[in-house]
Amino acid sequence: MRFITEQRLDDDILEREFLLGDIPGILWTPASVPTPTPLILVGPPPIGLRNAYPRLLARVRPTVAAGYAAATIELPGSGDRPRSAAADQALADLRRALAAGGPVADEIVDRLILPLVDEAVPEWQAALDALLALPEISGPVGYSGGVISIGTRLAAVEPRIAAAVLFAGSFVPRAILEEARNVKIPLHVLLQWDDEGNDRQRSLDLFDAFGSAEKALNANMGGHTGVPPYAGAEAGRFFTRHLT
Amino acid sequence: MRFITEQRLDDDILEREFLLGDIPGILWTPASVPTPTPLILVGPPPIGLRNAYPRLLARVRPTVAAGYAAATIELPGSGDRPRSAAADQALADLRRALAAGGPVADEIVDRLILPLVDEAVPEWQAALDALLALPEISGPVGYSGGVISIGTRLAAVEPRIAAAVLFAGSFVPRAILEEARNVKIPLHVLLQWDDEGNDRQRSLDLFDAFGSAEKALNANMGGHTGVPPYAGAEAGRFFTRHLT
Repeated sequence: MRFITEQRLDDDILEREFLLGDIPGILWTPASVPTPTPLILVGPPPIGLRNAYPRLLARVRPTVAAGYAAATIELPGSGDRPRSAAADQALADLRRALAAGGPVADEIVDRLILPLVDEAVPEWQAALDALLALPEISGPVGYSGGVISIGTRLAAVEPRIAAAVLFAGSFVPRAILEEARNVKIPLHVLLQWDDEGNDRQRSLDLFDAFGSAEKALNANMGGHTGVPPYAGAEAGRFFTRHLT
Repeated sequence: MRFITEQRLDDDILEREFLLGDIPGILWTPASVPTPTPLILVGPPPIGLRNAYPRLLARVRPTVAAGYAAATIELPGSGDRPRSAAADQALADLRRALAAGGPVADEIVDRLILPLVDEAVPEWQAALDALLALPEISGPVGYSGGVISIGTRLAAVEPRIAAAVLFAGSFVPRAILEEARNVKIPLHVLLQWDDEGNDRQRSLDLFDAFGSAEKALNANMGGHTGVPPYAGAEAGRFFTRHLT
C-alpha cells in the first residue's frame, strides 16, 4: 500500500489516495484524533471512484466526524481499471433486457455480478490487511456499501468484519441468496423503495435470506441516490452500536 | 370526557384514566411541563387495554419523557366493551383458517377488520376533539399504533393528524389498500419481519400503496412484540422531526 496524495479537507479530515498494487483507493481519517480508530470499508457504486467521489465524500464526512477511519478501493472494471469483454457483454445484455421492459434473465445477472464478486472480495480483504497494519487504524471493522452482492460475500467470508450496512439497489444472483444464509453479523440494509434500477423483490428475498440474528431493513422513498439524511444518520447509529 | 382516576408514576408521568361516553381511555402527560404539549394518539393492540397496559406503558414512557402527551382508548369489542356476534364469528373463522395452515380468505379479513375500522375511526376522532379541548394539550397530533387498518383510515380522513407511526402486524382488507392511496402525511412503518401473526406480503403491499411522499419502512427481527429498543428510538426521532 503506497500513499500517493495527501490533503486536509476543511472539516478536519485527512484524505489520502493510495495504490494497493495497481488498485487505486482513498483513505479518510480524523486529522486530529491521536488514538487508533475503528475502520469502515466504504463500498463504492460501480461507476468509478472519480464519478462516485461526491457521493462517497458525503457518506464519509459524518463517519469520520464520528471518529472512524473510512476507506474505499476502485472496483474491478471501474474507473481506469481494465474492463473485461465478458463484463461489457453482460452489461450490454442487461441494458437491452431493461430497455425491452422485460424481466432480466438470471443468467445475465450471473454473468455480470458473479465474476465481479469473485474478483472484488479478495481485493477488499487485501485492502483490509494493509489498512489494519497502519498504526492509526485499530478496528473493529464495518463494511458499508455499494454493490450488495460484494458486501454479502464479504460479510459471509471475512471474520474481521463485525457489522455491515448494505445498500439494496443492484441485481443479485441467485447464488448470492444462498451465500447470504452464511452471514451472521448484524446487518442494516437500506432499500430505496422506488429505485428504478433496483429489483425490489430480489432485494426483499435477499434480506429474508441473511442468517443474521440482528438484521434491519430500512426502506425509504427518493430514488436510487436519494437516501434521506435521517436514514444515513440511523445507519451511523447502527455502527455506533456495533463498532464502539 | 370524564376523568375517573389519577396517579403520578415514578418518572414524572401523570396517568389519568377517563371515560369518553362509555369508552374507557388513558391519558399520560408530563407531570411537570407547564406549557401545552403535542399529542400522540396511541393505538392499542386488540387485546384490551388491561392486557396491553404493560406494552402501552413501555411505548408511552419515552414519549412522555420527550415532552408529549399520549392517549389511548379501548377498541370496539376489546376489554369490557360489548362484542358483536359477527366479529366473534369472523375471528373464529380466521383462527380456523390459520390453524389449517392455509391462506386466509379476503372475505374473512373483511368481516373481521372493516366493521372494526368503521366503528373505531369516529371514536378516535371524538377522543381527539375531547383531548385537544384540554388546556394542557395543544398539538400537533401524531398517531402511533396498533391495528394498522385503523391507523390507515385515520391518517387518510383526519386532517389533524400530522404524522403516523404504523405497526404492520395484522390482517389488512383489500379495501384498505385503496384507502392507503389517500394517505399523504409522513409515515414510519414498523414491520416485524418474522411475525408469525403477520401477513408480510400484504404489509409490503400496504406500504407500497401509501400515497405519502415521505414514508419509511423499518423491518426488524424479533417476533410480534419484539420491536428492538433502537427501532423504538427511531420512531421517536420520526415524531421529533414532524411534531416539534
